[in-house]
Amino acid sequence: MESKRWCFQGNQDLQKASAITIGGVLAMLRGNLNKDDPRPLIPLGHGDPSCFPSFRTAAAAVDAIVTALQSHEYNSYAPIVGVLPARRAIADHLNRELPYKLSPDDVYLTVGCRQAIEISLAALNRPGANILLPRPGFPTYEAYAASKNLEVRHFDLLPDKDWEVDLDGIEALADENTVAMVIINPGNPCGNVFSYHHLKKVADTARKLGILVIADEVYDHLTFGSTPFVPMGVFGSIVPVLTLGAISKRWLVPGWRLGWIVTTDPNGILNQTGVVKSITSILNISQYPATFIQGAVPRIIENTKEDFFTKIIGMLREAADICCNTIDEIPCISCPKKPEGGMFVVVKLNLTMMEGINDDVDFCMKLANEENVLVLPGAAVGMKNYVRITFACELSSLEDGLTRIKAFCKRHIKINQ
Amino acid sequence: MESKRWCFQGNQDLQKASAITIGGVLAMLRGNLNKDDPRPLIPLGHGDPSCFPSFRTAAAAVDAIVTALQSHEYNSYAPIVGVLPARRAIADHLNRELPYKLSPDDVYLTVGCRQAIEISLAALNRPGANILLPRPGFPTYEAYAASKNLEVRHFDLLPDKDWEVDLDGIEALADENTVAMVIINPGNPCGNVFSYHHLKKVADTARKLGILVIADEVYDHLTFGSTPFVPMGVFGSIVPVLTLGAISKRWLVPGWRLGWIVTTDPNGILNQTGVVKSITSILNISQYPATFIQGAVPRIIENTKEDFFTKIIGMLREAADICCNTIDEIPCISCPKKPEGGMFVVVKLNLTMMEGINDDVDFCMKLANEENVLVLPGAAVGMKNYVRITFACELSSLEDGLTRIKAFCKRHIKINQ
Ligand SMILES: Cc1ncc(COP(=O)(O)O)c(C=O)c1O
Ligand SMILES: Cc1ncc(COP(=O)(O)O)c(C=O)c1O
Repeated sequence: MESKRWCFQGNQDLQKASAITIGGVLAMLRGNLNKDDPRPLIPLGHGDPSCFPSFRTAAAAVDAIVTALQSHEYNSYAPIVGVLPARRAIADHLNRELPYKLSPDDVYLTVGCRQAIEISLAALNRPGANILLPRPGFPTYEAYAASKNLEVRHFDLLPDKDWEVDLDGIEALADENTVAMVIINPGNPCGNVFSYHHLKKVADTARKLGILVIADEVYDHLTFGSTPFVPMGVFGSIVPVLTLGAISKRWLVPGWRLGWIVTTDPNGILNQTGVVKSITSILNISQYPATFIQGAVPRIIENTKEDFFTKIIGMLREAADICCNTIDEIPCISCPKKPEGGMFVVVKLNLTMMEGINDDVDFCMKLANEENVLVLPGAAVGMKNYVRITFACELSSLEDGLTRIKAFCKRHIKINQ
Repeated sequence: MESKRWCFQGNQDLQKASAITIGGVLAMLRGNLNKDDPRPLIPLGHGDPSCFPSFRTAAAAVDAIVTALQSHEYNSYAPIVGVLPARRAIADHLNRELPYKLSPDDVYLTVGCRQAIEISLAALNRPGANILLPRPGFPTYEAYAASKNLEVRHFDLLPDKDWEVDLDGIEALADENTVAMVIINPGNPCGNVFSYHHLKKVADTARKLGILVIADEVYDHLTFGSTPFVPMGVFGSIVPVLTLGAISKRWLVPGWRLGWIVTTDPNGILNQTGVVKSITSILNISQYPATFIQGAVPRIIENTKEDFFTKIIGMLREAADICCNTIDEIPCISCPKKPEGGMFVVVKLNLTMMEGINDDVDFCMKLANEENVLVLPGAAVGMKNYVRITFACELSSLEDGLTRIKAFCKRHIKINQ
């Protein structure tokens, strides 16, 4: 058997694209946990609180799925763009905040927001094209760009300016091959929420450069500070916008894998430029969410009571407060800006004050090992020597985790400074 | 607004890959229906009987989903390879028919069998590689190969030999850049079932050539003739096999989008050659089935009673009989071989006997227009001047559809032959 020569081998091209994923980094940290630590693991590394009892999804959402399933109307294949009632429900849902009307035809259902990212990048790709991505950001964009050979250029989010987009940087980066810029609002990893005013400037800049805006709004309406959430689609008549979303975060069901791409583009530019045609071509050879989950979308949206959202937002606000207040008390780390939305805060490491910690990855590896706490190294999201902490978890766990981070920092503080 | 120049445009590369899909061809036919025809549409074009009351899925399968959903244990993100209990259940399920034992690690969950195809082709791709596909076959393979620039070479299934693989053809086609051959068993579109003996020859040929076998067994166990279903994995020690499957067909729930790739390879060659690593790299940047659907798999498999399958197979047998017997009575068309499995039969058109019908596409377009019946042109599956008819539908609809096909053929028969 051993001597047999086989003609096939694994595709070698794939390594680059899958190099950095949050899941991969967290798996590496998990490999460094101390199995003898009797304390529970505190997972503050990823944005999925759905395993905690306080962050259970709305009963109405579960009922909606059961109803769709038991109707036996959604066992068949679905249209590649998604079932009409779901597309209509999402259009109507978004229309409540737009100065013009989306039609169901503007909505394409996807397997979570993640596939919305994949399809958007694929639809815009062409030889030589480049795309502008935020730093810090969400590495799935980089991974999909790499897998499609789409060049990435990074613009900064400015820590001293509430993590606003560096618009001058955008203008300096863009050239005639730039096809789009991405914004994530509310922000991952920064927990910032862009003001109406700032989004308007983003739209003006993109228009000036002739590029479209991909607005990742997977954390839409998860805001608890003074800045209200404004959908980028509001500026769709200035610049065409691809709005990406999902039920994953707001309904706390990332495992249900239901998201969307919406062409928020009242002037029909995405149609004229062939982007819409590309999206449908890609959908033709793509995967789609289970038909009965699609069929449940209208009821999920209609039947989920405001109470549910209010409760979740209240918990996120309280968690963000606790998180920032505790961090303020911890030497060696600081929080540039208190989060106003989403599930994360980025925290700056003052490494010169610490003994035996080389960088953010080292910080996270040692924290995992010594305290059974997972937080994400900033390197994974483009911010070396920062860490990203998820505050979206059970309050008792969060407090426990922060106490351990405090102990860790105190233990690693330089004695003679 | 109109004069604004935008830098982006749709990705032009995509057209080739999405050129021929069964959905696209059926949409074209649907566009040719006569809206004034008062008779119900009879859809014999695609393999999805789940909309018919007689082909409703097992109650146990629905209950399994409800249980998984209501447990609230499966709302979170899933591991990229799939949740362990589902992988284990599928491995155990397949093990009942294999001469060695699969482990859960051999199983990767996918978004239906369709994504299993996508991932398999991507994992094997490398510059210059080619793959051997059956003709007639399932055009999703061609579409994914095109999208990945993987060269396709077609081998024939032989109508005069019960649609067996033309093994001499395989040897003539393969070269040092051939990475794999695909078999679909039970067959789509031919409804054939390969014998143990023939599968053994396929394995020997593939081994001789040093290529792996991708065994698409999405119709596994849907057999009702004299040839029993034998999984290709039985020959995994002769040649490494990627077994592709899904609950789509056997449980009649294609909309649930749950499938798998299994490395049926007791000698670990797929590991040594890096194919396993490629699969996991691809999964890292791929979509996956909803976590609670994954979580339901063990119960779906365990709790579905044998009665359910027996009943479905009985209906398919009866439908295939009716289909072939009626076709025998129809002038101008004939059935090279009575189906023994799956949901389809391929039917040969004797165009020289027909008036005003140019080819298979023309036949299907006119049939749609004149009789409100959809069948698939053979061109869509690589067999010009054949048509593919689905017999998996409500018997009353099937009989109605066949009666209309008969009337159509009689009307189009040449008067002076
Ligand atoms: C900014 C951002 N976009 C997209 C996604 C993916 O969302 P989904 O889980 O719906 O695929 C995430 C998930 O964490 C995210 O943080
Ligand atoms: C031969 C074959 N393979 C794969 C598939 C795709 O299966 P699924 O619906 O599970 O994606 C089909 C569907 O018709 C098929 O006929």
